[in-house]
Amino acid sequence: MASQYLHPLDPATADEIQVATDLIKNLFSPVELHFKAAGLDEPAKTELVKYLDAEHKGNPLPLLPRCIFVIWYIKRTPRLFEAVVDVTNGQILQHQELPRDFHGPVDRIELTEAANVVMSNAEVDKEFIRLGLDKSQVVLDPWDYGVDGTDTQARMIQVFLYKKNPKNNSVDSSHYSFPLDFMVTVDLCTMKVKKIVRLPLGSDEKVTTGNVPQPDSDPAEPEYDHRLQKNPPRTTMKPYNVVQPEGASFSVKGHLIEWEKWRFRVGFNWREGLTIHDVHFMGRSTFFRLSLSEMFVPYGDPRSPIYRKGAFDLGNVGAGVTANNLQLGCDCLGVIKYIDGCVVSADGSPAPRPNAICIHEVDQGIQWKHTNHRTGKAVVVRKRQLVLQQIITVANYEYIFAWIFDQNGEISFETRATGILSTQPIDKESKVPWGTRVADGVMAPYHQHLFNVRIDPAIDGHQNSLTYADTVPMPWDEKLNPLGTGYISKETTINRAGAIQDNLADGRVFKIINPNVENSVSLTPTGYKLVPIRSQMLLAQPGSWHWKRSEFCEAPIWVTKYKDRQLFPAGDYTNQSIGGQGIKTWVKDPDHVVNDDIVIWHTFGFTHNPRVEDFPIMPAEIASFHLKPYNFCEYNPTNDVPPSSQEFNKSTPYEDAQKNSSCCTVKGRL
Amino acid sequence: MASQYLHPLDPATADEIQVATDLIKNLFSPVELHFKAAGLDEPAKTELVKYLDAEHKGNPLPLLPRCIFVIWYIKRTPRLFEAVVDVTNGQILQHQELPRDFHGPVDRIELTEAANVVMSNAEVDKEFIRLGLDKSQVVLDPWDYGVDGTDTQARMIQVFLYKKNPKNNSVDSSHYSFPLDFMVTVDLCTMKVKKIVRLPLGSDEKVTTGNVPQPDSDPAEPEYDHRLQKNPPRTTMKPYNVVQPEGASFSVKGHLIEWEKWRFRVGFNWREGLTIHDVHFMGRSTFFRLSLSEMFVPYGDPRSPIYRKGAFDLGNVGAGVTANNLQLGCDCLGVIKYIDGCVVSADGSPAPRPNAICIHEVDQGIQWKHTNHRTGKAVVVRKRQLVLQQIITVANYEYIFAWIFDQNGEISFETRATGILSTQPIDKESKVPWGTRVADGVMAPYHQHLFNVRIDPAIDGHQNSLTYADTVPMPWDEKLNPLGTGYISKETTINRAGAIQDNLADGRVFKIINPNVENSVSLTPTGYKLVPIRSQMLLAQPGSWHWKRSEFCEAPIWVTKYKDRQLFPAGDYTNQSIGGQGIKTWVKDPDHVVNDDIVIWHTFGFTHNPRVEDFPIMPAEIASFHLKPYNFCEYNPTNDVPPSSQEFNKSTPYEDAQKNSSCCTVKGRL
Repeated sequence: MASQYLHPLDPATADEIQVATDLIKNLFSPVELHFKAAGLDEPAKTELVKYLDAEHKGNPLPLLPRCIFVIWYIKRTPRLFEAVVDVTNGQILQHQELPRDFHGPVDRIELTEAANVVMSNAEVDKEFIRLGLDKSQVVLDPWDYGVDGTDTQARMIQVFLYKKNPKNNSVDSSHYSFPLDFMVTVDLCTMKVKKIVRLPLGSDEKVTTGNVPQPDSDPAEPEYDHRLQKNPPRTTMKPYNVVQPEGASFSVKGHLIEWEKWRFRVGFNWREGLTIHDVHFMGRSTFFRLSLSEMFVPYGDPRSPIYRKGAFDLGNVGAGVTANNLQLGCDCLGVIKYIDGCVVSADGSPAPRPNAICIHEVDQGIQWKHTNHRTGKAVVVRKRQLVLQQIITVANYEYIFAWIFDQNGEISFETRATGILSTQPIDKESKVPWGTRVADGVMAPYHQHLFNVRIDPAIDGHQNSLTYADTVPMPWDEKLNPLGTGYISKETTINRAGAIQDNLADGRVFKIINPNVENSVSLTPTGYKLVPIRSQMLLAQPGSWHWKRSEFCEAPIWVTKYKDRQLFPAGDYTNQSIGGQGIKTWVKDPDHVVNDDIVIWHTFGFTHNPRVEDFPIMPAEIASFHLKPYNFCEYNPTNDVPPSSQEFNKSTPYEDAQKNSSCCTVKGRL
Repeated sequence: MASQYLHPLDPATADEIQVATDLIKNLFSPVELHFKAAGLDEPAKTELVKYLDAEHKGNPLPLLPRCIFVIWYIKRTPRLFEAVVDVTNGQILQHQELPRDFHGPVDRIELTEAANVVMSNAEVDKEFIRLGLDKSQVVLDPWDYGVDGTDTQARMIQVFLYKKNPKNNSVDSSHYSFPLDFMVTVDLCTMKVKKIVRLPLGSDEKVTTGNVPQPDSDPAEPEYDHRLQKNPPRTTMKPYNVVQPEGASFSVKGHLIEWEKWRFRVGFNWREGLTIHDVHFMGRSTFFRLSLSEMFVPYGDPRSPIYRKGAFDLGNVGAGVTANNLQLGCDCLGVIKYIDGCVVSADGSPAPRPNAICIHEVDQGIQWKHTNHRTGKAVVVRKRQLVLQQIITVANYEYIFAWIFDQNGEISFETRATGILSTQPIDKESKVPWGTRVADGVMAPYHQHLFNVRIDPAIDGHQNSLTYADTVPMPWDEKLNPLGTGYISKETTINRAGAIQDNLADGRVFKIINPNVENSVSLTPTGYKLVPIRSQMLLAQPGSWHWKRSEFCEAPIWVTKYKDRQLFPAGDYTNQSIGGQGIKTWVKDPDHVVNDDIVIWHTFGFTHNPRVEDFPIMPAEIASFHLKPYNFCEYNPTNDVPPSSQEFNKSTPYEDAQKNSSCCTVKGRL
């Protein structure tokens, strides 16, 4: 088979996905199936570790069959299945039907079908007539469905409605500037409209779903697409080119990346998108697997039907499924390597995701500098980073995710939230305490973006511990702290799996250490520290559906004992989920996690109470957390980065540049 | 006079400083003076506002005399003076002698003199002999003196001692890898050694100042200067050039900067270094003055004499005085404009600070993106920023400060802490809870870097208020919050000057608003939000000298009513200060601050418990806070930034770049 020469961590290929779905289709034939997801089923850790150890030592490699994990429905039924298919040996290893409360992710084909159902419904027509709208003016925005407790077994979708900008009637107009005052729910099994719901338009906290005509929004600038804007783009911004005359400093062999003392593998799957594996720095193991594991976007408008808006964008849709096709010279600068991905279509055929990941270097300013004031001798070294980026589009929103490797041994995960606010209509002059008026007649409700990153550490091996260090004042003491200036670090090892709260007042630092390996300089265990994104946790009330479903959103840091297949902290099936399958469940009977194979989970996010400046499109909200070597090396690992010099960097004095550019302008005029 | 055509906010020129010190020298002649500081005395705000209003309206400009503020000693005495000199009219407007507890900043000439005193002291010689050291091997590190309460009126300096790396004996060796086991205090008036103090070397919390011979440190790599390192620099990093073929997008006229809808003035003075004035975005006023106002670096080793280490690097030395001469192609990339500064020499002559500030653009990735999934149409816009950077060297440490303007209306202040750890000797195998072993026999004590930035807002005018908004869950309510998902924002206006605590759990957002101007879209006051750097505050005990002196270090946010000359939140004279002159004092009888001319002070910092990776030189520790328009604009101000395109950005596919570079390598070999 085609797959036999692949690395066990290489993403599923188109061939492999085809083989897997064919085997399943054969098994069920002639019953028609609707495939939902397919991707690499990574080998069990014990097997994978053996393979990687052999690989690093240059020993003969054990044979590991390539396996594909597949999710599907029996078409137009609520019957959901999952299977692991060994595509090396062409056999289905296990498959099972899932309980009726479990729902597969949404997909574009099903959403389009649901949209068509809405557009051809007589009752919906009446609403269009009421609003004086022609169907051709209407744009649908289907959303995954958050449960409200009324029916957890029906497969549902909720569709919000907008109209095109009446000024241009373009298919690319930003319809979010023109929300309609009703929405529709659709049953995905029967493919029928279930309910038409009028949206609240009121100004106070009362649930006002009265028959108020939709106000005609007239934003100052409703369009983000330059072709549709009132005025042409600014002409003041001069080009800024990143030129790498000798090429990139990184090398890519298959999915193996090597760059500046780093060596790791890139993975990709339908759900997490980009994943990072088997990370070594300076020849030493640091992290076994890094991935965005889930995200939850609950909305704060308490009224029906908005209270159902709470999307798990990975589990419900997939960061691989929604991966943008990144374009040269648009999404990053300099020398860029693109990596393709592959997911599955509803009919089981492979669905390529070309240019799903891009890899490039950036210069992040100064890494370090010192001037010896005695001699005037200055040494300065720049900060080069390697960025692995992916961008996903989930309906209105975009997320830009980047794993960033630094010459200094640091790994950062950067999140940029951009795209378009999900909007609702609002009465003229009305204000609500859970939303912002972002245009005339348009309200953007408050919401949270809560991310979770799964960190499977392997600091100098797989036996690690999680500790936190608080920095606290020493008590006054005539002998030990005579001036009251002393302070110390107090370290606590986490013994049992569970959640750990942050503590800003004590400057809490989280460390992943290897208690078995001592740093010969500091005489302390080798480790990495986790510098979290300090954020507000879930705002929904304990006991609410949002709260039950988003188990990871209650605490910023969690630790668990490693278990195969424990990858998704809100559960494997998040769409219309009812909770009880995620990380809180895993730690109910907490495992021992000292000097063990452990996994750290970091929850962070934005409480996004929109600004007018976030509309019609949102300047990226940016946050990064960091994994920094902490007494891991014997000295600064960037000590040998060459000094920053004009010879190497080729900068230009402002005066010369302006002379040349005005020179050109003059020449152009002659 | 030369100064008559200058803008009232232009920094003091060399001529002006000369005129001012000449006038003072004449007044005191024949008494010899030791000048400590000189710089622009900015006009009173009422006068300045009139001038700027006239300037913006194109009206005739009022005449404002240029004034220079000067600090000096009567040479070799504790007699300290300050004056304001009108250099336009050639007269000393006011001058006064300061109380004996006030001390001027240190300067290089005085420190060098003190160092010479140490090196020619017979008792110190005995210590060198004890350690078997030749004087030529010794390097001195004079530090400003933190009071310990024993004598607050003597002018003191404390000198730490090191030796050159015995392997190279170079003047540029990193002596911080080789600390000696004693230090010396010097009286700056008598210029005599006051005390020789043995440093503690012990392993526990006891004050052990025994006569232990200094261990011979042998770090794995003691040098940061590439010329002295054991191995040559890495050769793996390929060049990365920023090319701006049409020049910069910003314009500089004198000290007026215009760039992408921004317009502001750059200032510079001996103490704050770079300052930013009269900031307008899209033709509207945003901030009147922005500056780093102070920083405090208290150390956590509780033992004598380290407990005196607590430096106010701005008030005690000056960010202008210590400004690096920035070098083309070393400290930033692309097209760079340098601005010079000027401070004063001990003899009153002007001391130029060439290239003290650099201005350049950076590309910060993606500003916004959206793909319409219905049509596949993607629009992406890049994030261009304008960086105003300065770098200061304060003994062992470097700080890189940058004011960053974004096309989206955001202003960020970025701090990078780099340079070299201040080190002490430690016994073999010993560990201490207030420090890290960073090399054999070398301990770097824990310390904090606490910065304060002064924000004088002028959001749509000078009448502003400070509010904070907490985001809080709505209580369960069958009607108003039936699913428990609702949450709202609760806004509090600060009525009186004082400190405001942070509140991460409630996602506290600080806003500076103009209650008199309503955003026509959101129907709320126009404003900017302050996104703080959430940090641990001062760890020293309440009542300690560190605590008394560093009044701003107790809380992250302060607000005061604007008052002329209230610029420095730890007081005007911080060197050997005893407290009682800073922001806590100003707010004791708190002013009304609603809808008034107010000033916001943001304290933030790093609790720096060193890592081995921070030695022999420290990869920059980076933190930024942000001022973001919050319902200030009518829509996204980057809506008109042209789309990101390959035509404009000229990126290169990895495969092409690697082909070309290997091509070149082959050619080189032929």
